[in-house]
Amino acid sequence: MPTSDEAGRRDAADPLATLREYFRLPADTVYLDGNSLGALAAHIPERLSRVLTREWGDTLIGAWTEHDWWSAPLRVGDRVGRLIGASPGQVTVGESTSVQLFNALAGAARLRPGRDVILTDTGHFPTDRYLADSVARLLGMRVIAVPAAAAATAVAQWSGQVAVVALPAVDYRTGELWDVAATTAAAHAAGAVTVWDLCHAAGAVPLALDDDEVDIAVGCTYKYLGGGPGAPAFVYLARRHHDGYDPPLTGWHGHAAPFAMEPEFRPADGISRTRIGTPHVLSLLALDSALDVFDKADLAEVRAKSLALGDFFLDCVADLVSEDGFEVVTPRAHRRRGSQVALRHPAAYEMITALLERNVIGDMRPPDLLRFGFNALYVSFRDVYRAAGELRDIVRSGCYRDERFAVRRLIT
Amino acid sequence: MPTSDEAGRRDAADPLATLREYFRLPADTVYLDGNSLGALAAHIPERLSRVLTREWGDTLIGAWTEHDWWSAPLRVGDRVGRLIGASPGQVTVGESTSVQLFNALAGAARLRPGRDVILTDTGHFPTDRYLADSVARLLGMRVIAVPAAAAATAVAQWSGQVAVVALPAVDYRTGELWDVAATTAAAHAAGAVTVWDLCHAAGAVPLALDDDEVDIAVGCTYKYLGGGPGAPAFVYLARRHHDGYDPPLTGWHGHAAPFAMEPEFRPADGISRTRIGTPHVLSLLALDSALDVFDKADLAEVRAKSLALGDFFLDCVADLVSEDGFEVVTPRAHRRRGSQVALRHPAAYEMITALLERNVIGDMRPPDLLRFGFNALYVSFRDVYRAAGELRDIVRSGCYRDERFAVRRLIT
Repeated sequence: MPTSDEAGRRDAADPLATLREYFRLPADTVYLDGNSLGALAAHIPERLSRVLTREWGDTLIGAWTEHDWWSAPLRVGDRVGRLIGASPGQVTVGESTSVQLFNALAGAARLRPGRDVILTDTGHFPTDRYLADSVARLLGMRVIAVPAAAAATAVAQWSGQVAVVALPAVDYRTGELWDVAATTAAAHAAGAVTVWDLCHAAGAVPLALDDDEVDIAVGCTYKYLGGGPGAPAFVYLARRHHDGYDPPLTGWHGHAAPFAMEPEFRPADGISRTRIGTPHVLSLLALDSALDVFDKADLAEVRAKSLALGDFFLDCVADLVSEDGFEVVTPRAHRRRGSQVALRHPAAYEMITALLERNVIGDMRPPDLLRFGFNALYVSFRDVYRAAGELRDIVRSGCYRDERFAVRRLIT
Repeated sequence: MPTSDEAGRRDAADPLATLREYFRLPADTVYLDGNSLGALAAHIPERLSRVLTREWGDTLIGAWTEHDWWSAPLRVGDRVGRLIGASPGQVTVGESTSVQLFNALAGAARLRPGRDVILTDTGHFPTDRYLADSVARLLGMRVIAVPAAAAATAVAQWSGQVAVVALPAVDYRTGELWDVAATTAAAHAAGAVTVWDLCHAAGAVPLALDDDEVDIAVGCTYKYLGGGPGAPAFVYLARRHHDGYDPPLTGWHGHAAPFAMEPEFRPADGISRTRIGTPHVLSLLALDSALDVFDKADLAEVRAKSLALGDFFLDCVADLVSEDGFEVVTPRAHRRRGSQVALRHPAAYEMITALLERNVIGDMRPPDLLRFGFNALYVSFRDVYRAAGELRDIVRSGCYRDERFAVRRLIT
């Protein structure tokens, strides 16, 4: 069992320890839910204040050119691109993740006319499932869901019928990291294109979309990327698909000449084709600021520390697993693990709520998973030690059985 | 010809004159482009700063409940609803206007299965046209475009075939206000449903969506409503359609039980069904603050002043129209006019650019329209007098012919 001293020694040796200073975090709180909503980088309010007063207030409509709001979806897109292994000109930022998923799934399907299957993951995040169903209905296709682990086999089995393979890079519940390169290769061997959901991967795990020959990817930016509540999503479209991409959300910002006000849609060249409507500038520029932190961090170091935090957590809760009915559902192997660790216990909800009362913030996913995210930018080994200790105390004392912890809140 | 004194007298008698104090506007600038991007209400930066630090920073994921971000799309939707004649529970705010138009057009079409025509306006804003085309392609429909003035006749002509009548309430170029009530009645007589685009109407002209029995409406919030660059759009869905509405963007925020993580989409009851993805909280709450100004203003007074400003402008430029080749394309009649006045002149671009150099901000729409928006919340009669005077000087001096005014900028 690790000791408090060991946690302290790990923190003292942590090359990323100083990054925490860039964040505003409440005192005396352990935040292990950065996989739902990342923490606030402390410099964002000053930037937003400037955007509001100097840009919007003082420059008014002229800010679209003078402060280049117009190009922000491309400029911020390239910044996200650097974190996911995309060379410039293949990523834009805008709209919500749900909207981008819809557009990407339909756009992907149209790259493979004559095929009628969208292959997806039985464990995929709900909105991905709902939107795949919706796209299938619109385009006369069908959705086949298999466990992500079986996707490579399944796409070979339905070879010739599968247009799109739509999978998460990291499972939102178990935290399992899937093999993007191998599954993409299997999809290509069967003539399909891939739509990867990177919500739980971008900014947390190493991604090499160009090298892996990924076709399309979508991700949110308010988890590991720290863009703030409802920060706009990103979409990656490999350069080789730019000319043929024909998605249904033909908003004017994706037009070749948006201000010519032409009566028919004529898609822009290059990645601008993935733009849809007017970008949510305030949310978008908050994200732009949030990404500054990544300029100070080596993503390989971030990944290494995150895995070390997860390992340390698993060591700290080993006794709960062996003695108290917890099951570790996240793979221990680094190559199969994202940046969170999920434990299974029938009283997951009550325990997470009891932890919250002790200023340890994790979250849960029904029916029985406790999720703990280890964002290496601001989580310390002492944080992890404390979280495990509080969980142990809650379990051993039985206090989580108090009825006040059973009251369901909306967001968990 | 009105005099400077008359402008001053009008301002002195203006019951809304004090509202200008609520806005941060650059000194010595006449802003007549609030119909593209409304001015900044001066209290928004403080609110956003609080959202960033106290809500996001200090409360983290818990802010979704503690600060009720979750309900913000409904709460802000009801605030917009009060300005467009919608009783509570029929409006949500979120996503971009383009996205909402797509969803609304497809959702509307599905309310009328077996009909294959989307009837729209030849002069509609481009994104409306593009998305109608896209929806028609997906649903096996066709788009018929007629001038908005002919829509009521056309829907009768194609009665039985028209599923959706999609029109603007105010023409974005000419500023003409269409008859929402009469056209909606004509659409209903032919068995069609209406999708009104309120971008250039909401917050500026009297709307009575409930009384007019409008079916669906979409609008942006960054023009007259002042929500800021790329502020989220709103969607109105009449209560009688709540149960049958079946739009394609089935994001998890529109699910009956978003956190149950069910594998199939089950639409929420009521207006929540129009929700799509995670709301862009920062942009959404900036809009929430912007709407505070409307709590201090009587919309009928706002409308009356805006028309008076437009009349005053037309009086001030009467000599340009009679002597210098300008044509007024906006109807003079109040019942046919929105909140902007558009003039036609072949050198529109150069003149608007020359005005900009004199701190008079209007805009233009190709090929030859000068647009001047009269937002009664912060535009004064002296502003209008000055704008007309500068325009006269630019025209009479011929200075607009200088080549520096011909350089095309991205946003005009």
